Parts: sequence; structure tokens; C-alpha cells
Amino acid sequence: MNTIGNKLRLTTFGESHGVAIGGVLDGMPPQIQLDFDRIAAAMAERRPGGLGATARSEKDLPEFLSGISPEGVTLGTPIGFVIRNEDCKSKDYDVLKDCFRPNHADFTYELKYGIRDHRGGGRASARETACRVAAGALAHQFLTLKGVAVKAFLSSVGHVGDFDILERLARRPELSDSFEIQEPLREEMMAEILRAGKDGDSVGGSVVCIVTGVPGGLGSPLYDKLNARLSAAMMGINAVKAFEIGGGVELCKSRGSQVVDAFVKRTDSGVMTSSNFSGGVQGGISNGMPLFFRVWFKPTPTIGLPVDVMRRDGEVEKLTVHGRHDPCVALRGVAVVKAMAALTIADFILEFGTQA
Amino acid sequence: MNTIGNKLRLTTFGESHGVAIGGVLDGMPPQIQLDFDRIAAAMAERRPGGLGATARSEKDLPEFLSGISPEGVTLGTPIGFVIRNEDCKSKDYDVLKDCFRPNHADFTYELKYGIRDHRGGGRASARETACRVAAGALAHQFLTLKGVAVKAFLSSVGHVGDFDILERLARRPELSDSFEIQEPLREEMMAEILRAGKDGDSVGGSVVCIVTGVPGGLGSPLYDKLNARLSAAMMGINAVKAFEIGGGVELCKSRGSQVVDAFVKRTDSGVMTSSNFSGGVQGGISNGMPLFFRVWFKPTPTIGLPVDVMRRDGEVEKLTVHGRHDPCVALRGVAVVKAMAALTIADFILEFGTQA
Amino acid sequence: MNTIGNKLRLTTFGESHGVAIGGVLDGMPPQIQLDFDRIAAAMAERRPGGLGATARSEKDLPEFLSGISPEGVTLGTPIGFVIRNEDCKSKDYDVLKDCFRPNHADFTYELKYGIRDHRGGGRASARETACRVAAGALAHQFLTLKGVAVKAFLSSVGHVGDFDILERLARRPELSDSFEIQEPLREEMMAEILRAGKDGDSVGGSVVCIVTGVPGGLGSPLYDKLNARLSAAMMGINAVKAFEIGGGVELCKSRGSQVVDAFVKRTDSGVMTSSNFSGGVQGGISNGMPLFFRVWFKPTPTIGLPVDVMRRDGEVEKLTVHGRHDPCVALRGVAVVKAMAALTIADFILEFGTQA
Amino acid sequence: MNTIGNKLRLTTFGESHGVAIGGVLDGMPPQIQLDFDRIAAAMAERRPGGLGATARSEKDLPEFLSGISPEGVTLGTPIGFVIRNEDCKSKDYDVLKDCFRPNHADFTYELKYGIRDHRGGGRASARETACRVAAGALAHQFLTLKGVAVKAFLSSVGHVGDFDILERLARRPELSDSFEIQEPLREEMMAEILRAGKDGDSVGGSVVCIVTGVPGGLGSPLYDKLNARLSAAMMGINAVKAFEIGGGVELCKSRGSQVVDAFVKRTDSGVMTSSNFSGGVQGGISNGMPLFFRVWFKPTPTIGLPVDVMRRDGEVEKLTVHGRHDPCVALRGVAVVKAMAALTIADFILEFGTQA
Repeated sequence: MNTIGNKLRLTTFGESHGVAIGGVLDGMPPQIQLDFDRIAAAMAERRPGGLGATARSEKDLPEFLSGISPEGVTLGTPIGFVIRNEDCKSKDYDVLKDCFRPNHADFTYELKYGIRDHRGGGRASARETACRVAAGALAHQFLTLKGVAVKAFLSSVGHVGDFDILERLARRPELSDSFEIQEPLREEMMAEILRAGKDGDSVGGSVVCIVTGVPGGLGSPLYDKLNARLSAAMMGINAVKAFEIGGGVELCKSRGSQVVDAFVKRTDSGVMTSSNFSGGVQGGISNGMPLFFRVWFKPTPTIGLPVDVMRRDGEVEKLTVHGRHDPCVALRGVAVVKAMAALTIADFILEFGTQA
Repeated sequence: MNTIGNKLRLTTFGESHGVAIGGVLDGMPPQIQLDFDRIAAAMAERRPGGLGATARSEKDLPEFLSGISPEGVTLGTPIGFVIRNEDCKSKDYDVLKDCFRPNHADFTYELKYGIRDHRGGGRASARETACRVAAGALAHQFLTLKGVAVKAFLSSVGHVGDFDILERLARRPELSDSFEIQEPLREEMMAEILRAGKDGDSVGGSVVCIVTGVPGGLGSPLYDKLNARLSAAMMGINAVKAFEIGGGVELCKSRGSQVVDAFVKRTDSGVMTSSNFSGGVQGGISNGMPLFFRVWFKPTPTIGLPVDVMRRDGEVEKLTVHGRHDPCVALRGVAVVKAMAALTIADFILEFGTQA
Repeated sequence: MNTIGNKLRLTTFGESHGVAIGGVLDGMPPQIQLDFDRIAAAMAERRPGGLGATARSEKDLPEFLSGISPEGVTLGTPIGFVIRNEDCKSKDYDVLKDCFRPNHADFTYELKYGIRDHRGGGRASARETACRVAAGALAHQFLTLKGVAVKAFLSSVGHVGDFDILERLARRPELSDSFEIQEPLREEMMAEILRAGKDGDSVGGSVVCIVTGVPGGLGSPLYDKLNARLSAAMMGINAVKAFEIGGGVELCKSRGSQVVDAFVKRTDSGVMTSSNFSGGVQGGISNGMPLFFRVWFKPTPTIGLPVDVMRRDGEVEKLTVHGRHDPCVALRGVAVVKAMAALTIADFILEFGTQA
Repeated sequence: MNTIGNKLRLTTFGESHGVAIGGVLDGMPPQIQLDFDRIAAAMAERRPGGLGATARSEKDLPEFLSGISPEGVTLGTPIGFVIRNEDCKSKDYDVLKDCFRPNHADFTYELKYGIRDHRGGGRASARETACRVAAGALAHQFLTLKGVAVKAFLSSVGHVGDFDILERLARRPELSDSFEIQEPLREEMMAEILRAGKDGDSVGGSVVCIVTGVPGGLGSPLYDKLNARLSAAMMGINAVKAFEIGGGVELCKSRGSQVVDAFVKRTDSGVMTSSNFSGGVQGGISNGMPLFFRVWFKPTPTIGLPVDVMRRDGEVEKLTVHGRHDPCVALRGVAVVKAMAALTIADFILEFGTQA
């Protein structure tokens, strides 16, 4: 239940304000010389404390306990790591011990387990995503060796954003390799986040992810499709409520004759098509074109305004919950989407190989 | 790879124009008196030959081979079933033996396996969904005993449709139990399908699914969330390109303060909230409110117009492929969405029980 | 629960006296030209009706429904098959409807499911093993292409048998490729089976299996060891109560210095050692030497003598159950052990490849 | 690959001489008040340094990082733990960097991964079993609450031992609850271990495990039988080469009429039989009688005498490997068998419940 992946499997553990969070990445191929700076950079991208993010400050560097030789080379054995919890202001959360915040996991955890660590969201806290990012950074290094690149960026905040980006990527596949597609509205989006924060409010957003260099032949009909597993990986990120691949929702309003991905030629690892409405997947199997998809994050329910909470006895009361939180989780979600994409694609490559 | 589910597991087999398709439903609880008329009705809903659907006519009734007593009661053992293939006009597909249609799985299957049954789409044909519907109808009978109801309906065809239905279901949770929400634009949508068909074209669409009576406590953090597995089940249906749950994409453009699902009271199996932007899931766990989600289908790439196909040698040529197909797969997708929802929710109940 | 394997997965269904038994073999590699005579031969080896076996006579030939091209070549898609039940004398079993036989699965199925198909043992009947043998014969053809040979033979019946065979195979690895090792006491063992049958009794036995040509590197520490999964596959066969690999029980009475498998040289796919007490597995991973193991079958509890049965109400009474049965299930177990070994080794090769 | 279990899943990591070993136990039920003294006692039983065991001295107490409230109550979330490696004399193993010891996993790991941590056996070291024992001790506390008791003891060392113990347990089921069955020959067995140690040699042994209070109905036909999964759990322990359940090998030499487990009466959770040759399992499902089985350990190949090792270049040479090791791994295997039994039975209870 706390494990994802088939051949490359991540298991995580840890509560937000417990001793530590951590994980085990099992199935990482042997003999890869790791670059620990890349891991630190990925962690930094997700780290709280930046612009528009929670004020909690942690170094968040994983300590690796196994699976890596003294020279920094993977052994093929499971890679265990821990990230100690520091700077926990657990006192901020005392008020939550006996009440549930709306739209949070407080109530459902209590319902399911009859007990929960209420401090900082406990197991349901987005803090757990630090483990995903650490593991994703390892997977990403494997992908780099295979010629696969994963990039992700913020594509909307509230009503500000690049709402026809999927169509552009579908119509002009060459944009997948370009940087011009990324965050043309970054300043406007950041301004919107700041506005929400100043209002004591939060705001939803979306992240687009593009994976290039994906070999054809990944994914397995009928119940282990590449798009299905990608979707599950993304919907498993806190606050995600929608997923689109390729042409997405707009594609599904079109006529078939308008969205034909005409064949151009076969390539070493698949096929080249003139457009890419399929988003690199046909029949659940990658075809060698870039993968791209959009992940939608709801506004975080943790806001600085008074909300109706429910006490354990069923009574409802108004409460303003203090504590540090992000006005727009999509911002830090970029690093998490990238990590989950890297883990998922690496898993598929390890399952099916790279030769079509 | 051809299996879905944990405790209730469906494995399917069969090519569109082979001897038969079929499946095994393993984990169905014992001692359920089956109603075979309900199974026939579900099959009829999916069956080709109806308005706006392919002209292929099959009875499509599954023959049950095991797991059911002579009295029609489930034994708890695996339920094997077959549906013989009839009315196959395989000759129609001879032209496809050595060439690949755009946006189909023809090329990716060939890439992956080096061989494929080209007749009628082979394994990638939507014909396989008949097995899902048969199995889903069994799961649905289990759900009925547990007080869970699953309904699904067409919510858009091309640009015709009920595009703010998720918001209405979120703002007014009582609509989940009502029929007024369903298909207010049915005639307009059917007309759009006929228009596309007459043009030799196809058109995309969407299906909304509502599940009521879902007990709280289903789903497991962090990598087996209810929404994540639902999403994978839906994205695994042929032609699906996007998935939204609860408030969906529009929710993710909102401010947090606008979409608070305020607590009203605890209930026997969870909680009642004044709105339902969460769509019945919080922290990946059901909270006792209705589940609802939207599934988007691309326009089927099988159209009656000339398209560029690629031959095995890499050459591209214009071709008009004859053969029977649906102008809008979302129409028959309704039965498939319902079946996959029933299988998924039944699986979760069997895993986690119904007592919160 | 009715599925075994990771990359090559067999799911079976069917009760002994229901409509049919059958299965789905998923993950069989594409482009293998099948030899259906080999399948028929494997089925014949397991078939009832032979010397010392039950009198039930069935042709037991599987009808293949999918996954195979009209030319008999595998497609890489799931292979569905059914074997219709014929020659069922269900009346023989009417007496069992409301009572449980000792040492059978009658009681435990009833306990677990609250219902069972009592006719001929229902799902618990050894008839299910026909599906294993059919699937195993497919897996075996894949193994042949990889240079792997699986053989199995009867090694003991009651107190008659070749009880130091594991030690001989360990001390003289070259015997693994020889036929002289096989069934030196066949006549004595068959005589013992006939004696038990004449007495209206049954007798236990054992089967030895040798797999040669196994590439090194199969199996995965620490919880997916080759020996662990082989053991589970064998213990999952009806009536099996013990499993030994390599030097087995006797090895475990030795001093370490007496059982050193000294290295001779590296080979293409592993290593050659002077003895083979390890039975081809070290640290859970194949080393390139022959695998060999012994599987022990208890005497079938179905005997022609009066036994104490328990009625559903808990009362115990004497009963002689008529019906056809084998005096020594190990005899037909030979084909089943071979099939399960083929499925297991093929699964490992598909998971880990054949290049060390 | 480094994970075992379905609902209660243990994932372990760590090399013998790396930073730490550890694990994640996922699926432990919530609201269990843990007794940490019991965990320490289990660790002590396995700890090196005792009579007849390796001289390596470690405190081996796990640090728990998550999944447990400050009050020591389980949260239902994954329990992460680490055990730091101390007292590593890695220098002792320098000689092994480029050569492989016979009957060890040195060669197969190198074959599979192309790299290995040679220090102290790396990942293949029995040190990993400390994680199993820690997790098993948690599972055991859950079992205690369910009325299940697991005990294990040494039953043979070399040719000294209680070789008809399975038959006694089968013929006299009441012995399963008695202590008189345990280790009647303890002194003779310990003397045999000391003799082997003094000779610089090692010796094989066996462990018997008895589980009482097992509810009926656990285990699932046909490929997830209780006995099959127990067998895999035991065969996955380092050095195990054989497994017997119930009457075991001797049962399989008997006539059926001699080993009838006659029904005595129904009980709350299953059935009582006059004998227990079945060992508590019939048709792969527990019947409510005590489970018992025997696990056979080969003599550890690490001995103090000169052996032929193979260098990476394929050359063979004589070498005496120094380092600390156990003359009889079965002695410390007792704690590991108990732990794996506790994990396996707890997993089955969590899957199938305790009500038949």
C-alpha cells in the first residue's frame, strides 16, 4: 500500500512530525555511478521555504544507508534512505488533535485507522513527497543513461496559465524538445500565488510534464497500459484531481479527421508522426514520440481563514488553523510530478527493455 | 498484464476475430444468487448494432463455465466465461495485414510483439470490453447487496454536452441520487453522433459516472489511493485520454476558500458535507459521500475517410479502410465505464471491508 | 489466488464436474511456432485411466481460444483454453453433499466459502492439474528454444524407491544429463501401486525433477529466490507435503567440509562445480549447474475402505465412498511437477533474461 | 524482490558492512500497544555472540522511525526501522574482493549484478535476518492478540536429533501445546555444534516450528495455499534446503489407511481431528488444528578450513578465509523461522480474517 512500481519499486514511510521519513528504492540497476549533486538539486526544487511555499525550513537531504558502494556506485540491492524531521512546530497542530479539517485527510484517516498522528498532517502530509523526489532523482539518473529526459513545469495557477499547451504540443511535436514551451507566463503565475497567499487563501494549479527519448514498446495491454500507470502515479500525488494525456480534454471534443497523427517514418525506436495528439501512446504502448501530460492540483485546503471543522464527537465549529502551508501546491508539485514520471518510465524500461 | 484487481481480479483473453474472447473473474464472494437477466441487460447496453454504433451484430452472451452452482449461486471459486466470436467479416481487414493505421494500436503492437492478429483490431479491439462488461455485471450484483449503486451516462459528444456537470454535482451533492442530472442533452448528443457518422467521420465524447452508497474508509495511502486506482481503471479503457474526479479541472482553477466541503455531520459510514468538490475521496480514502468522475474518450481513429497508413517497409500511402466501427465510442463506453467502476469499487470493498 | 507467476502467469478455473475447466496463460512470448503434438503428449502423461490411475476416461485435450495465430504461432497475447468435462459420474458423489471426508479439502472449503461443489471434489479435485499440464507444455516449448530441458520421474512409492538419488545427483553432477538415473526401480514401484490399489488402499510417493540448461543469474534476493518460488510451486500441487532441493535433508545432516561444491571453471552461463550439493542455486540465484529437487506426495486420502466422515451437523459416521481415484497420486504427479517446473523456470527467464 | 507478504509486507535493505540495515513493515494494524521488551528479547535470541554462534557482537536493537505514536501505539502506517552496523571487521574480508567462496552467494551475486559488496557477505549475509526478526516480533504481537502462538526450536544438529518429531506431533496432536516436545536432546545437539566449531568445520541442522491457535479458513486455493506460502517463506531463509509440513517425508512413505486424521468434532474455528498428519492444512486451507513444519538448514559453507575459491579471472586456488561465522546456522535460525512464521500467518489473517 505504501509501495509503487513493479521492477523498480519505491516503498516509503514516515509521518511529517515523527522521527524521520524515508524509503527503500528496490530494483535500481547495478553499476550506475551516482551524481549526488543532482539529487540535492532535485530536493532543492521541492524544498519548502521558497517563494510562495511554506516557511518550514529543512535541509531535506537524504542519508543513504545501503545499496551504494563506498565509491557511489549502485549495487543492484535495495537503496534505503532516511530524511530526519527537523524544524517541526508540532505545537501549532495541538488544536487538531480532536478535530478534523474540511477537505483534508484528517477525517478519512481517523475513519480508517481509528488513530492518526495529527501533527503536521502526519502520514498524509505532503512532506512524504520528499521521499518520492529523492527516489525519482535516482531513477532519473538511470533514465539519463538510456537517453530519456523528463521535464516538468508549472502551466497554470488559478485562471492564469497556458491553457492550450496540450494542443500546441500535439500540433507541433518539435516543441517537446524546446524550452520555449515552458512557463511563458511564469511571472503572472507567481504573482497570482502571492496574491492568494496575501489573502490568506490558496489557489489551484497545473503542471505539464514532457518525457522525450522514450523508446517505443513500453506498456502492456490491456490492464497495464503506459497511460494507465502514469495516470495512477499522478493521481496518487496529494491534491491531484485530474489527468490528461496527449490532446487531453480538448482532443475529446474533436472530430476524428481533425486529429490524425499521420505517419512520417519509422525510426530506430518507433515511429515519427506529423502531429502527436496521442501523446506518445497508442493502444497503451509507447510509439517512440514524446510523452506529454498535464496534472491538475486542487487548491490546498489548508488556508489561513476560518473554516468549519468537525470535532470527534460530530460537533462542527469555526476554526482558524495556524501552521505553515503553501498557497499553491502545484508549485512544489513540479518536482514531484517529475519524480513520479521518472520512477514510472524507469520502471517500464526495466520491465520491457529498450529494444522495440 | 491482462489482469486487473487485487482481491477481485479479472483476467481476459481473446482477439476480435479469433475463436472466442473470454475471461476469468477470481475472488467473487461465495453464496451470491446471480441474476442472469441483469448480465444480459448490461451486455445489451454495450452491444454493437445500436444507434450510432457499429453494424457488427453479435449476441455476445457469455457462457459461464465454472464458479457457479447449478442453482446459479456463486461458489467463491473463479468464474470462467467465454463469448464466441461470430459475424466476423475478417476479409474486410485483409488490407491491414501489412500496414498500420494512424492513431491505432496496429503499429505499437507490431513494434512490441513483432506479430499481431490484424483482423478487426485483434487484441486491441474494443470487442475485448465485452468481457469487462460481463465481469462488471457480476461485480455489480455484489455491490447491490452492499447498498452501492453505480450509474454512468453520456455527458458530451464533441462540443455538445453538459460541460459543467462536475461543478453541479460538487455544489449540490443531492443531485448524485437524482435522475435529473443524467443526459439532459441526449437528443442533441445523438444527433451529433449521427452527423459524424454520415460524414464518414468520428467524434470524441465523455461519460460521467456516479457511485452512491460507497462506504467510507476505502483506499489506502499512499500508493493505492481510491482515486488513483479508479483513474488507472478508466485510462485503461480504449480511447480514454483524460480523467477528472470531483470538481476536476475547474476545481483546480479555484481559490481554496471557494471550494470548502464543509462538514454537516457524521454518518454511519462516514461523513456528510455540504458540498462535494472532493468527489467522495479525501487523502485517497473514501469519506462516505458519493463518488463521481468524468472519463474522456477521443474520437475513434477508425473513420471512413482516406488516411495515411504506413506499410511494414516504412512507406506511407493513402488508404480508406472499410469495416464496421462506431462514430463515437463514448456511447458504448458508458457500459464499460460502469463495469470498470463496479469492478474497482467491489475490489476495494473486498480488500478493506465495509465497516469504517 | 488462482493465478501463479509474475511475467508468465497462469490463471485457472473450473470444477471437476462443472461445465469445463480451463485457464489463461498470459505473458507467453510471441512468435513461437507451437507443436500441438507435444501438448497432447504431455496431457497423455497426466491422463487418468492408465495403469495404477483412476478409471475416469477423458480425452482432456485443451481447445485453444486465443493468443495463437491461425498458423499456430503465439501472438504474445493471452492464451485462453478450455477442457470440457466429460464422463462425469456425479451421482457417485451424492453421498458427499452433506458430509466431509477426512484429510480432504471438503471441510476446509465449506469452512471458508460456506458452499462447495461436492461433485468429484469440485475445485479441489486433482482434475485442475490438467490445466497446469496444458500450460506447462506451452512453457516447455519456450524453454526448449532457450536450451532448457525439464525431466521428472517417479522416485519412490511407499517404502520402495531410490532414496539416495539426491545424494547421487549431488556427488555426480553428470548424472543430471543421463537417463540411467531415472526410475531404476520402476517395476517394483508399479507393483507397489497395484498392491495398494488391490487392497482398496492408497500409498504415498515422490517425484524427482531435474532441469538442465538453466542459465545462471535467475532468482532474486531476498524474497524471490529461485528455490523459494520453486518450492511454493511444488507445495501448491495437491497432496504435496515436503520439498527438498539439491542435497536436501541428508545434506542438512552433514558437516560443511564434506559437501563443498568446489569450483572447476567459469562457463558461458555460470560456473561448473565438481559436485552439486547446492542443486544449482546459491544465495537464491541459479549458478548454471543443473537444478534438481524432490517432491513428496502423501497417500491420497480417497480410499475404498470405510472411513469416519463428518456430517455438516458435526456428527461423525463410518462411510465407504465409492468413486474413481488413484492409488498413488505421485504417478500422475510426474507430469504436474514437470509442468510447474517449466512454468516457474520460464517465468524466471522472462523476468531476468538469459544473459548472466 | 526484497519484499515479502500481501497485506502485511516486509521490505528490507542493507549490506552486512554498510551504513545500516533496516526495513519497512507495511500493513501492521493500527491501535496495537507495542511491548518493546518482547522485540528486544526476539533480537537477543538471534543475536550473534552466543554459544556456538559467531563472535561478532552487536546490540542489534532497531530504531523505529515511523508508524508508531509517541505512546508506543501502532498507527496503521508503515513502520520504518534501522539497525546501524557496528563492530564490522571489514578488513577480514579484503581477500574476498576478487574471489568467490564455494557454496556461497559470492559468485551468483557477481554473475547477476556484475558488482557486489564483498565485505562480510554484503547483502547475502545472514545479518539481514535481524530485520526479519525485528519485523517478526511486531507481527507476533498482533498474533498474540488473536490468540495465535508461534514457537520454534532446534530439532537436529548433524546426525544428532529428534528425527521422528513430525510423526509424534502427527500422532499426538496434544503435544503441540506441550513443552515436553521441545529439544529433548538440547545438550547433545549443543555438544555437536561445539565439536564442529572446534574442528574448524560447520554442521547442518533443522528447526521445528509449531503454530497453535490458527483459525480455520486461512489460505487460498489454488496458487496461494497456506502451505505453499509458508514453504516459500522458509526456503527464502539463508541456507535452507528442505521443508516438510505435517507428517512430511515419512507420511509420504505410508499407506493412506494408516494416516487418516479422523474427525472428532467441529470447533469454534474449525475442526478437531484425532491425529494431525495434515499438519493443520487441508486443500491449502487451515482447518483449525495446530500447524507444524520442519525446516532444514545446510551446514554453513563458511568454514575455517582451506577451500578452493575461484578468482574473478576463473582461476581456482586454495584459501582459508578468516572471519566470524556460526558453526551451525540452524541455532540462530530458530529465531528467524519463528519470525517468518509470524509474518506469514499474520499476513494470512489480515487477508482472510479470523472468522471462518
